[in-house]
Amino acid sequence: MCELLGMSANVPTDICFSFSGLVKRGGETGPHKDGWGITFYEGKGCRSFKDPNPSCDSRVAQLVKEYPIKSKSVISHIRQANRGGVNLENTHPFIRELWGQNWTYAHNGQLTDYENLPLGRAHPVGQTDSELAFCWIINKLHQNYPTVPDDMLTVFKDIAGYADELRKLGVFNMLLSNGEYVMAYCTNNLHWLTRRAPFGKAQLIDEDMTVDFCTETSDSDVVTVIATRPLTSDEQWNKMQAGEFCVFHFGERVL
Amino acid sequence: MCELLGMSANVPTDICFSFSGLVKRGGETGPHKDGWGITFYEGKGCRSFKDPNPSCDSRVAQLVKEYPIKSKSVISHIRQANRGGVNLENTHPFIRELWGQNWTYAHNGQLTDYENLPLGRAHPVGQTDSELAFCWIINKLHQNYPTVPDDMLTVFKDIAGYADELRKLGVFNMLLSNGEYVMAYCTNNLHWLTRRAPFGKAQLIDEDMTVDFCTETSDSDVVTVIATRPLTSDEQWNKMQAGEFCVFHFGERVL
Repeated sequence: MCELLGMSANVPTDICFSFSGLVKRGGETGPHKDGWGITFYEGKGCRSFKDPNPSCDSRVAQLVKEYPIKSKSVISHIRQANRGGVNLENTHPFIRELWGQNWTYAHNGQLTDYENLPLGRAHPVGQTDSELAFCWIINKLHQNYPTVPDDMLTVFKDIAGYADELRKLGVFNMLLSNGEYVMAYCTNNLHWLTRRAPFGKAQLIDEDMTVDFCTETSDSDVVTVIATRPLTSDEQWNKMQAGEFCVFHFGERVL
Repeated sequence: MCELLGMSANVPTDICFSFSGLVKRGGETGPHKDGWGITFYEGKGCRSFKDPNPSCDSRVAQLVKEYPIKSKSVISHIRQANRGGVNLENTHPFIRELWGQNWTYAHNGQLTDYENLPLGRAHPVGQTDSELAFCWIINKLHQNYPTVPDDMLTVFKDIAGYADELRKLGVFNMLLSNGEYVMAYCTNNLHWLTRRAPFGKAQLIDEDMTVDFCTETSDSDVVTVIATRPLTSDEQWNKMQAGEFCVFHFGERVL
């Protein structure tokens, strides 16, 4: 299994605090030692930092913890390998361009009988069930919408339907983003919370670290964090239900 | 204009020395202050570091200079914007998946009348002539070879032909890689050299920095470096001719 972390915000926000908690689970407070990755959107562009080494002692993870890259949409993943070797091509998040947009995806769980999911436009580079399922989703979207769709609502319903199909093959917890929307699908383990004014303090579970969001934010900020397991001990996290699909648009839940 | 840097090697090799020279040109010894990026292949996987800020004072560039990521194939670019704003989506290298391989591309030059190049599978995310030309190449390759081709030699000939077409639209210096092969196409400014035993010393042009490759390598190492302008003052660089296309396979020139 793996751990997912996502963020959706209405102002460019750094994820240093949450990421600090996550990376500890990458080989120190958690067993997820088989690589990690994080993708930050800045406008339509995005950049990823990835490492097939454990996040808890990764030089690149150290940079990401300390260097406050501000973004409205973030997808991150730390890996405990089940399908596919420990190497860079199997390290999440995975990205494909669709409709002139960067689509970023990370998966927690394990699928069986996924090998025959039909492919088309997108093909996996690595050997994971996760990337193959992502390519299948991209191909389905491209089949249904050869050009950029006007109505994203029908796209979300389709994605939820594809995720339901994948859940029939095993455990499928997913984060997906096109930079504007951050989507989350739950089979068994996914939590989220939205921080907004009045902001308070929060204490990380995995590290002796507290942040006072009051000093870091302005009153109009809305920041949603999505994680496999709650990252803080003193905030109310919403546990997603099996088969539940959430869509966040710049911090606010819209579906 | 911009500066390109590529590497092809038969053993995983770090590019810290060459990159140290390049980043100086990103706003300090050169005018290329509009962002930079570098992509390292590790097996079939690759990871990119990108920043829309000048490389000479980028925290991420500092990491890449100091942290010896070893790779057999590298593509890097520092940008002086002409077409498209200074932002992450316009920052090279650009990557698309084709045939289950990561294809990485960077361009130096400027094209005119490129807007009507027909697109298909791949669409640009940003606004540069460079990315649009890359998408056109990917689409042409996908049209000609719907599945992974057996014979890469015909693929190289096709790519050289596409590059010839693009050269008719302006200045088109290009680096392109699928992780295994590193390809270079020249309109007016591209140089390369191959380092092999007996290794000697080299002095960077842009920084007071010397390296003794003898202490860094073994006798069987073969490392080719490709750059817009020579990076060292005491080595013999090969200047590419207008319309020349070179292909390097793990350090050795094969075409």
